[in-house]
Amino acid sequence: MTDFAAIDKYIVDHLDDSMAELSRLCAQPSVSAQGLGIRECSELVAEMLKRRGFAVEIIATNGHPVVYGEAAGDSDRALLFYNHYDVQPPEPLELWDSPPFQPTLRDGKLFARGVSDDKGHIQCRLSALDAVKAVTGSYPCRIKFVIEGEEETSSLNLEAFVKDHAAKLKADGCVWEFGGVDHEGRPTQYLGLRGICYVELSVKTGTLDAHSGLGGSIFPNAAWRLVWALNTLKDGNERIRIPGFYDAVKPPSARDLELLAALPDNSDDLLKRYGLKGFLKGMPGGPELRREEVFVPTCTICGLTSGYQGPGSKTALPAQASAKVDFRLVPDQEPLDILRKLRAHLEAEGFSDVEVNYLGGEAPGRTDPDHPFVKLVLDSAREAYRVEPVVHPMIGGSGPNHVFLQALNVPIVTAGVGYPGSQAHAPNENMVIDHFVTGTKHTARIVGRMKEEE
Amino acid sequence: MTDFAAIDKYIVDHLDDSMAELSRLCAQPSVSAQGLGIRECSELVAEMLKRRGFAVEIIATNGHPVVYGEAAGDSDRALLFYNHYDVQPPEPLELWDSPPFQPTLRDGKLFARGVSDDKGHIQCRLSALDAVKAVTGSYPCRIKFVIEGEEETSSLNLEAFVKDHAAKLKADGCVWEFGGVDHEGRPTQYLGLRGICYVELSVKTGTLDAHSGLGGSIFPNAAWRLVWALNTLKDGNERIRIPGFYDAVKPPSARDLELLAALPDNSDDLLKRYGLKGFLKGMPGGPELRREEVFVPTCTICGLTSGYQGPGSKTALPAQASAKVDFRLVPDQEPLDILRKLRAHLEAEGFSDVEVNYLGGEAPGRTDPDHPFVKLVLDSAREAYRVEPVVHPMIGGSGPNHVFLQALNVPIVTAGVGYPGSQAHAPNENMVIDHFVTGTKHTARIVGRMKEEE
Repeated sequence: MTDFAAIDKYIVDHLDDSMAELSRLCAQPSVSAQGLGIRECSELVAEMLKRRGFAVEIIATNGHPVVYGEAAGDSDRALLFYNHYDVQPPEPLELWDSPPFQPTLRDGKLFARGVSDDKGHIQCRLSALDAVKAVTGSYPCRIKFVIEGEEETSSLNLEAFVKDHAAKLKADGCVWEFGGVDHEGRPTQYLGLRGICYVELSVKTGTLDAHSGLGGSIFPNAAWRLVWALNTLKDGNERIRIPGFYDAVKPPSARDLELLAALPDNSDDLLKRYGLKGFLKGMPGGPELRREEVFVPTCTICGLTSGYQGPGSKTALPAQASAKVDFRLVPDQEPLDILRKLRAHLEAEGFSDVEVNYLGGEAPGRTDPDHPFVKLVLDSAREAYRVEPVVHPMIGGSGPNHVFLQALNVPIVTAGVGYPGSQAHAPNENMVIDHFVTGTKHTARIVGRMKEEE
Repeated sequence: MTDFAAIDKYIVDHLDDSMAELSRLCAQPSVSAQGLGIRECSELVAEMLKRRGFAVEIIATNGHPVVYGEAAGDSDRALLFYNHYDVQPPEPLELWDSPPFQPTLRDGKLFARGVSDDKGHIQCRLSALDAVKAVTGSYPCRIKFVIEGEEETSSLNLEAFVKDHAAKLKADGCVWEFGGVDHEGRPTQYLGLRGICYVELSVKTGTLDAHSGLGGSIFPNAAWRLVWALNTLKDGNERIRIPGFYDAVKPPSARDLELLAALPDNSDDLLKRYGLKGFLKGMPGGPELRREEVFVPTCTICGLTSGYQGPGSKTALPAQASAKVDFRLVPDQEPLDILRKLRAHLEAEGFSDVEVNYLGGEAPGRTDPDHPFVKLVLDSAREAYRVEPVVHPMIGGSGPNHVFLQALNVPIVTAGVGYPGSQAHAPNENMVIDHFVTGTKHTARIVGRMKEEE
C-alpha cells in the first residue's frame, strides 16, 4: 500500500517551496484575450515540467501554443491532467486590493490573477506528483499534461490539437483543470459542463459620430440599433426568442435530478457574495434553482460599449456600438447550430446591419457518474478531506471537456484548489492556502491509487 | 458712415495676431464634463478682455464661473455677446490627426478641440471689436460679454446667473455663441434652438460581476435590465413611447414652413460627411427631412457602458450598466416635465431598478424672424459675404437661448466662424481661416451698424 501519511507530510513540509513556485508562475501575466505574456508563460510552464524530468514539447497551434509533458511510470496505464496557463484580463484594475500580477499573501490566502484559475491547479498537481515520487520513488502510471493557452478565450484550437494527438493523449482517467471545495468546505465533484457560444454583435451606421442635435431625428444611431437587436434575443421572462434555440435541449434524467436533490443549498451564500436582492424570476433556493442554474441554457450580455462613456454629458450620436454576448448550452445543443440560428433570427427581425462575430464555442459534455474512475476519485476525496464529497451531475460553466470525451473516450473528474470565494474572472482572485494543502493531498491519492487499480 | 472698407483691411492685416491669440486660447484645455482646466481658461479669457479695456468680473456660480466683461460706447444702447469658454471632451484621442490641445494649422484650417466650438467665435468677436475701435476710435454702443463655462454640460447654472444679473445684461440685441456658413459657403441665420433633457440611466443588480457560467440563468444582469428599459423608450419607427411625451409639441407655423421651404438642400452633403447609407425612415432630402430634423423631438442614446469591453471574449455577468440619453425638445416641451414623464414611464414599465440621473436640460427658444435687429444682421451678412443669407427658423441643437429670451426679452441672432465640416464634438475639430476673416467682417458690421440704428 502506498504510504499516504508520508506523502501528506511531504506536502506540508514543502508548502513554502510550492507557494514560491506558484508565485513565480502568477507573476507572469498570460492574458490570452489580450495576447499578453503568452510565450513567456508557456516557456515558464514547460520549464516547471522539465525540472521534474518530464519530456516536454511546446506545440504550436493556430493560436497560442499547448505545453505537452509526459513522464513514464510503473505501468502503462495513464493519468491525463488538463490545465491552462492563460488567465482572464485583470480589468477593472482599480478594484484590486493588490496588483493582479504581484502575488500577495493576506489572511491565509494568496491573491493574484490566475492563482485559482488555473495556475494554482497546475501547482497543486505538480506538488502532488513531487510528493508521490519522493515517498515511493516513482509514479505508479504514466503521467500526461496538456496545458493550453486559450481556455479563457474558448479554447479555439484545442479540439484540433486533441484530435491530432489522440493516440499520444490516450489515458485511463482525466483530471480536469478545476475542482476543490464548496462554500462549506466539502469536496466537490463536477461531472459535466455546459457548452458555450460566444459572439460579439456590432453595428456601424456611419463613419463618424454626429452631434445629437444635428442627427437625433434623421440619422441612424448604432446604439439604438444594437439595443433593439439585443431586445429581440431574450424577453423579460428570460425566454430566449431565437427560433429553434431550445430544439436540442434534453431535460435532465431521473439520476441527474436525484444527484441535484442531494446537493446542499448554497443559495444564501450566493445572494450574500454577489450582493443580490434575489434570484431571477423570484426563484427560491433548492433543487429548482440548481436545475435552472445548470440544465437551462442562457443568453448573457457580458459587455456593452458605444459612444461617450466618460463622466458628465456629451451630446454624441454614436456611429458604432457593440455587445459581447454568451450563450451557455446544455446537452445536446451545439454552438455552431446556435450561431446559425442567431444569424437567421437577426436577419429575419430586420437586423441585417448587426454583424455577428463568432468569438468561440464549446459543446456541452458529461461523464457517467457511475464510472470506476469516478469512484476512485470520490474515495480519495473522502480520505483527504474526511468529509463526504458533493457530486454535481453538471455545472453552469463551460470548457472543452467534450473534446476529450469525444476524441479520447476518457472519464473526466475534477480535483483541486478552487472554492466559491476565489473571485475567478473578477478582481481580487485568490486561493486559500489550506485548500491548496488538502487539494494536493487529494490529487496525490488519485495518482497513488492508479497503482492499486492495476 | 462707418468706413467698413478700412475695418475689413484692419482685420486682414491683423489676421496673424488673431490666430496667435486664438491658438493660445485653444492650447488651454477647458473640458467642463471632466472639470479640466476650467479656472485657468476663465482667467485667460478674462485677461483677453481686460487687455482691451473691458471691466471684467469672474463671477462664481454653483458650477464653473462666468466671465463677464463690459465696455462703454458712444451710446447707451447695448450689444450682448454670449459665448462659452468650455469645450467638449476630446476623446477618442486616437482619431485625432494632431493633438486636440496643440492647435495646428493645416490646409488653410486651424485644428484644435474648441477652435470652432466656441473659442474661434470668442476670438472673432474680439478681433471685430479691435478693428472697429482702431478705425473709428470707439465702440458705437455698450459692449457686453457673457462667457460661461458650462455650455457643453447643459449650462446648469446660467439661468440663475442671467436672472440674477438681468439689469446688468440688458441689451438691444444678442449675438449667440455660434454662426457662420453652410456647406456651400452661404451665411446662415439661426433663429431658434431645440431644448434638451440629458439623463444617465444606470442599473446596479449586485455588488460584484459574476462568472457568466455561474449566474447566467439565475442572477439578474444589469446589462439586460438596461437594454430592456431602453427598448421601452423608443420603438423601431422612432416613435418615443413615454406617455405624454408629445403632449406639448407645437407644430411649425406657416411662416416656419415657408422659411424651411426656402432652405437649400444639404442632404447629400450630410450623407457623405457622416458616411450614412440613408436617413431614418428612408426619408429623402428636402423640406420633409428639414422639418423632421428640427421640429421633431428626439431620444438619442449617446453612450452605453457595461461589463467587459476589451478585445476578445470575457465571460462576465455585469452587476452594473449605464446609458447616456438625450432628448431634444421642441416648443413648448419643458425638460423637467419630460424628466418627470420618463421616470413615471420606467416605473410603470417595471424598471424601478433603473436610476435616472438628470445631467441637465434647456427649454427650446425662438426669435421672431421679422425683428429689426434680425434685419440689421441679415443686411450686414449680405455685405460681408456678398451672398444671400440662409434663414433657419429653428435648428436641431440646443442651448440656453430661452434663458436670455425670457429674462432679457432680447432678439438673438447668430454670426461667426462655424461651418458644417467643423467636426464640433468630434475628433479633428477645425476652423477655416477664410471663414474667420469673413465672419469677423460680418461681426464688425453688426457692431458698426448699432450706431446707424440710433
